[in-house]
Amino acid sequence: METYRSAGVDVGKGERFVDRLKAAARRAGHDKLWRAAGGYAAVCPINERDGIALTTDGVGTKLLIAGQLKRYDTLGIDLVAMCANDLVCVGATPTLFLDYFATGTLDDDMADGLIAGIVDGCDQAEMILAGGETAEMPGLYERGHFDLAGFAVGNVTKERLITGEAIRPRQTLIGMASSGIHSNGLSLARKVLPTDTDTIEALLTPTIIYSSAVRNALAAYGSLITGIAHITGGGWRNLFRLNSSVGFAIEDPLPVPAILERISAHVQQEEMYKTFNMGMGMCMIVDGDCEPILKALGASGMVARKVGIVTDQSMTLTIAGSAVTLRG
Amino acid sequence: METYRSAGVDVGKGERFVDRLKAAARRAGHDKLWRAAGGYAAVCPINERDGIALTTDGVGTKLLIAGQLKRYDTLGIDLVAMCANDLVCVGATPTLFLDYFATGTLDDDMADGLIAGIVDGCDQAEMILAGGETAEMPGLYERGHFDLAGFAVGNVTKERLITGEAIRPRQTLIGMASSGIHSNGLSLARKVLPTDTDTIEALLTPTIIYSSAVRNALAAYGSLITGIAHITGGGWRNLFRLNSSVGFAIEDPLPVPAILERISAHVQQEEMYKTFNMGMGMCMIVDGDCEPILKALGASGMVARKVGIVTDQSMTLTIAGSAVTLRG
Repeated sequence: METYRSAGVDVGKGERFVDRLKAAARRAGHDKLWRAAGGYAAVCPINERDGIALTTDGVGTKLLIAGQLKRYDTLGIDLVAMCANDLVCVGATPTLFLDYFATGTLDDDMADGLIAGIVDGCDQAEMILAGGETAEMPGLYERGHFDLAGFAVGNVTKERLITGEAIRPRQTLIGMASSGIHSNGLSLARKVLPTDTDTIEALLTPTIIYSSAVRNALAAYGSLITGIAHITGGGWRNLFRLNSSVGFAIEDPLPVPAILERISAHVQQEEMYKTFNMGMGMCMIVDGDCEPILKALGASGMVARKVGIVTDQSMTLTIAGSAVTLRG
Repeated sequence: METYRSAGVDVGKGERFVDRLKAAARRAGHDKLWRAAGGYAAVCPINERDGIALTTDGVGTKLLIAGQLKRYDTLGIDLVAMCANDLVCVGATPTLFLDYFATGTLDDDMADGLIAGIVDGCDQAEMILAGGETAEMPGLYERGHFDLAGFAVGNVTKERLITGEAIRPRQTLIGMASSGIHSNGLSLARKVLPTDTDTIEALLTPTIIYSSAVRNALAAYGSLITGIAHITGGGWRNLFRLNSSVGFAIEDPLPVPAILERISAHVQQEEMYKTFNMGMGMCMIVDGDCEPILKALGASGMVARKVGIVTDQSMTLTIAGSAVTLRG
């Protein structure tokens, strides 16, 4: 069986590096920021009431898969999604987006496709494409290779900032369906799946931009929402980022997309849940009646349902009908 | 003779792409932004009086040069410099920085060196290192290769925003000395220079972070400063970005650093001024007495002097003692 590590990505090593980075950042004034749930965004006060939320992300090796079909017009949606979905996890309203696009030699078709996707993503996320940087770096990127990073800004008030501190046992977990693999775990997928056109097209399905739907829910029912986890690298372990004193029981998981089912033939179940979204691209924690929130998410076009509850088993996640237990 | 194009970088093609990108961005809500000088940063209003300024940049193929000596602890200074120096060009105070670091396989020494430089740069620029993204992408980056992008945020008031519209003929140009090649034109430098350790060390000299010195000058004499150009890709043509109705006469240029003199043996003079900073990393345009500003910049540790004047020759730049005339 393959693992994310055997596919060349050592999450543990990455996490240790991030810990050292955080220590360095603390020395560089990090204490002036507001504490926000899960580190999904950095939140900086601009006055006592208002703050701005910032995040940066890329789309990982999904880039390489797009290159195989020379189909570049959806990667920008993934890029905006990775950033906008992170911003709403701290309760912020995404407002501004910038992109960094680096390549060996500028290819007009590639570049125009990437822009089209970024503009499409900004439309979906209701963000302004404020600027960007295009870098031509012969010698660093091979012919046809490129990298893409996004940077996003949102507004948040201190009152509406989600810190995760209000998460308590017996609160409800709402799962929001993913569209497929989204933008995480592609290195492992590439290692175990064939490279026929149908498979690549399935892998290229763009990440769902949940931000507008989540914003609508937050606007109407924000006081009931105690945590939101964007399920990215690390899979369902992302839930542990929200609050270390609780655990989670997933009792009625959303269906696993077909492309992830195919990968699971080559990868152990636990590794699947630690690497992929497994059908749940976002998870929202609700204190109280979740029916009106489910209705609001549905009205925004999202497939969402109650998938489980918060437990008192600190940093432990159990999945009904599966032998898998994840620990933080 | 070599050109930037023969070194694999087609600036014209890049500029045409940026024009298409701007058109796309206009469709994506760009008209809500405040107009700022030279496009050095996107400025978004947060209320009638205050705005935030945003920029993103990388360090180009300086990355590859660092890799040759495995010396990574100054690239972060370049990265912060490229962003912070851009922000002050619109009159903003740099506040927050995020980095995007992508590599094939995470190398602890490399990663720690990069962080150390970023923290050092944030200290110099008086910015908070608010966050970042570390991406491991096997298959995209060769062993030892990586990319680095920076995102920076600053504060600006509408009153202090520099638009370049107040630039008029006969105003004074203050040049601020560069430390060497900074972070632009490295692909061309790599093509024409030998790869001995002394040369590589000279090329690696970090970009000067001008932002704190410029902020001090803006705080005391902001009403006299009508334009600021960070001399980056495009060389001295960056001045044309500030105001298309004027030109510039450089009468007393700063000394050209030795490393750029060495490159000029292989590259035509006009190409040198269109690609490199040629000794002037920042240029400030002053309406009135520039002596107090020169004193303030000197007190902040900068080497600065009067280098020329604004002319009425639209989009034309002449350099005393040189046959070079640049046109926009």
